[in-house]
Amino acid sequence: MTAAHATPLAPALPDFAAVEDAAKRIAGLAVVTPLLEAPLLNATLGCRLLVKAEPLQRTGSFKFRGAYNRISRLTADERKRGVVAFSSGNHAQGVAAAAQLVGTPAVIVMPSDAPAIKVANTRAYGAEVVAYDRWRESREEIGARLTAERGAVLVPPYDDVHVIAGQGTVGLEVAQQAAAQGITLDAVLACASGGGLIAGIALAMERLSPRTEVFVCEPAGFDDHARSLAGGSRVANAPGASSICDALLATTPGDITFPINNRLLRGGLVASDDEVLRAMAVAFRDLKLVVEPGGAVGLAAVLAGKLPVRGRTIAVVCSGGNVDPATYGRALAML
Amino acid sequence: MTAAHATPLAPALPDFAAVEDAAKRIAGLAVVTPLLEAPLLNATLGCRLLVKAEPLQRTGSFKFRGAYNRISRLTADERKRGVVAFSSGNHAQGVAAAAQLVGTPAVIVMPSDAPAIKVANTRAYGAEVVAYDRWRESREEIGARLTAERGAVLVPPYDDVHVIAGQGTVGLEVAQQAAAQGITLDAVLACASGGGLIAGIALAMERLSPRTEVFVCEPAGFDDHARSLAGGSRVANAPGASSICDALLATTPGDITFPINNRLLRGGLVASDDEVLRAMAVAFRDLKLVVEPGGAVGLAAVLAGKLPVRGRTIAVVCSGGNVDPATYGRALAML
Repeated sequence: MTAAHATPLAPALPDFAAVEDAAKRIAGLAVVTPLLEAPLLNATLGCRLLVKAEPLQRTGSFKFRGAYNRISRLTADERKRGVVAFSSGNHAQGVAAAAQLVGTPAVIVMPSDAPAIKVANTRAYGAEVVAYDRWRESREEIGARLTAERGAVLVPPYDDVHVIAGQGTVGLEVAQQAAAQGITLDAVLACASGGGLIAGIALAMERLSPRTEVFVCEPAGFDDHARSLAGGSRVANAPGASSICDALLATTPGDITFPINNRLLRGGLVASDDEVLRAMAVAFRDLKLVVEPGGAVGLAAVLAGKLPVRGRTIAVVCSGGNVDPATYGRALAML
Repeated sequence: MTAAHATPLAPALPDFAAVEDAAKRIAGLAVVTPLLEAPLLNATLGCRLLVKAEPLQRTGSFKFRGAYNRISRLTADERKRGVVAFSSGNHAQGVAAAAQLVGTPAVIVMPSDAPAIKVANTRAYGAEVVAYDRWRESREEIGARLTAERGAVLVPPYDDVHVIAGQGTVGLEVAQQAAAQGITLDAVLACASGGGLIAGIALAMERLSPRTEVFVCEPAGFDDHARSLAGGSRVANAPGASSICDALLATTPGDITFPINNRLLRGGLVASDDEVLRAMAVAFRDLKLVVEPGGAVGLAAVLAGKLPVRGRTIAVVCSGGNVDPATYGRALAML
């Protein structure tokens, strides 16, 4: 409570009240996505599996939640100058759609190899798209330059209190939807790139369902959260890895997200690209839900047996569905 | 009220009270499927389009609603002997799943060329499957023989008061979900094979949203409802036609469904197989919803401009999502 205790290097962290506040702010604009269940899949797995269907969210992924929670808080003056974001595609669409609703210009820095559907949709929401080379240029530097040039506000993909709180509404809804059905969740699984979604979910579960274990799920080669949690401090992914999960390629856990995740998560699970493709196929066959690779990594972890599920009740967040037909065809070939 | 007025040839018709009663009976077992909306699709069409997502229903189509409403009313004695149904696949799965929940044996007569996923799922719900040749044998005769042999109860796919009332809960939910959002629907579209779904929907809209026009949608070559409505009496499809819409191949409107549809529907719309495939692709891209050919015919009618939609608010029922990967690949190739 005194200045002597101030630690300027420790970032402000969002809390449960921030998640509740975000839920009020996005109400009526974000979709309260359903918690899907497939009896035949339950029978196969010997567990009760609930799937939070964020592909059905506005813009096709959970990213609209955090983006709108941040952008709707711009001052009148900031709205005139607009927002900048860098994103492989889902945050791009979330920011573009939120900016359009709020009435502020958006410029989005996207990798030149982002899925075509993500680039096209970002433009369709009225944003300006600036392409960069994922392997040779720094999106952070490009974003910083654009922000300075335009006097715009940078909307980070995960390291932002309001963005994390917005993504946390996924966890809030999962907890509320499970409780409404009289279900006690043994575990909740969601993917991570920078860790904003899983951090927000963990904040919600800590308050609403404290005995539920929260696991982060990542693609092989990009398991920086799993290894950072195991060691208790942030480590980076080795360079040169590749994955079909275009949405999950951040190299380290975030500055703000990691302290939350390190305190609240039970651990990390890792799935291969083939396991991810198979999970997309199962979502097609048993849930009738289009899930993109990055969105299927949690389901992949369950289906591939990375977590004991028999006799338990598990919620998995399928975080997005923005996938090109060619990639989807690869998943269908798994059936 | 007197015997002199009895007309033995006129079948008993379901009414709105039967739909409300069905809603109570399926509550907690059937999914209240969401009404999806895609802002980019709205912008393209210049209308507000709401999609009732019945692929997310238990068994992957609306058919569980009617099947459970009928089968849950079996007497204790009937439950011991079981049920028989004939179906191209979605009614099969609905009956099998409902029978499993009620605890009664089910035998399903399915065409030998039904999609593999529909046959496999019907078996997975514990039903016995009897295959027949769609072009050379009569499923009605096979069903009647099995019913007689086993003393079982036949669960018709559409010509049954309880089945129609159960399917009508789709319309009940559409009307309630639209009202909860403050939306007045200008039109509701759904597909027909025998016409049970659209008849049930029409009963619900007549009471809850009487100014909403209800249209039946059919594949080219199987537009028996459209032509029957235009002429005011039932006509059959010409033999020899084929369509990708495996769920919509009945040859005439039903005995019970047609009087309802003839009284309440505004008319019929027809879509080609290519228009249906394109609608499946749009549902993949913009709604992240897996829709089977027969389930996409209403969406196809809207996208292909078969109905003026500009400036209007339209609800389309996507009725099911049980589609094989190969057929789905044909749809994705449209993008």
